[in-house]
Amino acid sequence: MNDLSPLAISLEDVRAAARRLEGRAHRTPVMRSRTADTLTGAQLFFKCENLQRMGAFKFRGAFNALSRFDAVQRRAGAIAFSSGNHAQAIALSARLLGMPSVIVMPQDAPAAKLAATRGYQEGQPGSEVVLYDRYREDREAIGARLAGERGMTLIPPYDHPDVMAGQGTAALELIEDVGDLDLLLVCVGGGGLISGCAVAGRSLLPRLRIVGVEPEAGNDTQQSLARGEIVHIETPRTIADGAQTQHSGRLTFPVIQRLVEGIVTVSDTQLVRAMRFFAERLKLVVEPTGVLGAAAALEGVIDVRGLRVGVIVSGGNVDPRRYGELLAGAG
Amino acid sequence: MNDLSPLAISLEDVRAAARRLEGRAHRTPVMRSRTADTLTGAQLFFKCENLQRMGAFKFRGAFNALSRFDAVQRRAGAIAFSSGNHAQAIALSARLLGMPSVIVMPQDAPAAKLAATRGYQEGQPGSEVVLYDRYREDREAIGARLAGERGMTLIPPYDHPDVMAGQGTAALELIEDVGDLDLLLVCVGGGGLISGCAVAGRSLLPRLRIVGVEPEAGNDTQQSLARGEIVHIETPRTIADGAQTQHSGRLTFPVIQRLVEGIVTVSDTQLVRAMRFFAERLKLVVEPTGVLGAAAALEGVIDVRGLRVGVIVSGGNVDPRRYGELLAGAG
Repeated sequence: MNDLSPLAISLEDVRAAARRLEGRAHRTPVMRSRTADTLTGAQLFFKCENLQRMGAFKFRGAFNALSRFDAVQRRAGAIAFSSGNHAQAIALSARLLGMPSVIVMPQDAPAAKLAATRGYQEGQPGSEVVLYDRYREDREAIGARLAGERGMTLIPPYDHPDVMAGQGTAALELIEDVGDLDLLLVCVGGGGLISGCAVAGRSLLPRLRIVGVEPEAGNDTQQSLARGEIVHIETPRTIADGAQTQHSGRLTFPVIQRLVEGIVTVSDTQLVRAMRFFAERLKLVVEPTGVLGAAAALEGVIDVRGLRVGVIVSGGNVDPRRYGELLAGAG
Repeated sequence: MNDLSPLAISLEDVRAAARRLEGRAHRTPVMRSRTADTLTGAQLFFKCENLQRMGAFKFRGAFNALSRFDAVQRRAGAIAFSSGNHAQAIALSARLLGMPSVIVMPQDAPAAKLAATRGYQEGQPGSEVVLYDRYREDREAIGARLAGERGMTLIPPYDHPDVMAGQGTAALELIEDVGDLDLLLVCVGGGGLISGCAVAGRSLLPRLRIVGVEPEAGNDTQQSLARGEIVHIETPRTIADGAQTQHSGRLTFPVIQRLVEGIVTVSDTQLVRAMRFFAERLKLVVEPTGVLGAAAALEGVIDVRGLRVGVIVSGGNVDPRRYGELLAGAG
């Protein structure tokens, strides 16, 4: 990796994304907790992307990417493979921009996610969810065929400059709202959020340390940083479903290599305790992936004493019964 | 009941309370949900008192009452009987005002509530939690003895003008923030919140309808309105622990009689569904009592179609494991 090669995005791309998102995305609140500060000896600033439209930061990147479509692309619309937050982000962004969307989902995806995605597509002609059998069909082939037949533009969940720049607006807003920070904790799946936030954060605050947080079972990015190249892992078994990626991206990884200090990991048990903390103290529902950053601080995985720490709380989309089971469970 | 007798509080009392609370209580956000509006055909404005200091509207009334103490009262401090939100509200308000507090609690109160109350008292000399055996001792006698010995002022949880006026600031802020409303839904325990909100609401918006919501099992106020006098019931069995009162107050009931259109009731099953709705759609943790008003609208107990409806979401203090069990449970 050549350290002098340009990264996929710059602060200007993040600022341009922020302008496109103005009035369309929520400027999410930054919340504090005296108890969290007392427990950790730090000042923690939680950027609450669980209160973002459709419940996760993914709206930022999806809307930014789709709003850059030219007239031909708009007419045909956007396509995405996802059963998670990216699917809902593309479906909602497409409808808001008045274009069709096709979301390719495994046929055994949870009914609630299917319904939510279709709900976001409602009223937009040409939009649909296409189901496939994940044991017998190849989603890449399905996507390529649909994209070819319909002329739709595929938007990947993280490895795309416009997606990365959109996600970076979360850090931009946080720094605009709270000023100087020593450390920024960001969850890591494919690296779209952390790479966007790292570009925004390090450009605005050159001494800002950026630390990524992965689930213990899915530390592919930690391994990749150690190895100096993108490591592929099996789909990890973790409750942090938003971080069940098998590898970081060709565009996101170089940013992480250059701007991120390192990656720490937290266990599922630590995630559940952090989710309970948010429910009890901040009255906020956060999905397992969403508390990765906070858990690293609250559980003492990383020493934050005396620091001003930004934490991206990435999303709150979790089935309420499943969420209840996690809160009620042992550990 | 003489319809011309003065009520315990006026709009001016609520406005004075608002001035005392400024910068001390949070001005809590008003949240919206497109899904809730679509489901109900109304415009719902949720006043989120679960995000109030100590997690419930009770802080408003307690702080207002304690901030009116004279120098002698301040030196001796405040006393309250409660194992719920009122206890924590008095403990926190007293510390913020630099006075001692004594909270009288049953010795079998949940450890978490005991710890939370002591946490709020921390650093304030002369503050303590006094435990009693609820099967063998009389808490009124204990309170009277402590108040006499120490010269402390007892603040009841609802039947007190300063408490009622403080609670009314929730409706005052809501109307200041959203303007005209057709209907205001408020949970009813002892009537402190609804009486304060009714005085504020009806004074500012004379055509505003105020409807109270009680748990099905604990409809003492509904019975009282039908009977024209305060009805006492056995402690009701409901998950809405904040509304397990046995009767409304001598000061609150006349306000309810004069200004409240009526009371509707919701079942525990309906409360749980409303709690799930808040978790899934608004990403907010709300305690069972806190969703009484919202459940009446979301479950169609009261017809809200075409109306602009304010809903007081009264609090979010529920043990996270218990909360998890409720969300995960059947129904």
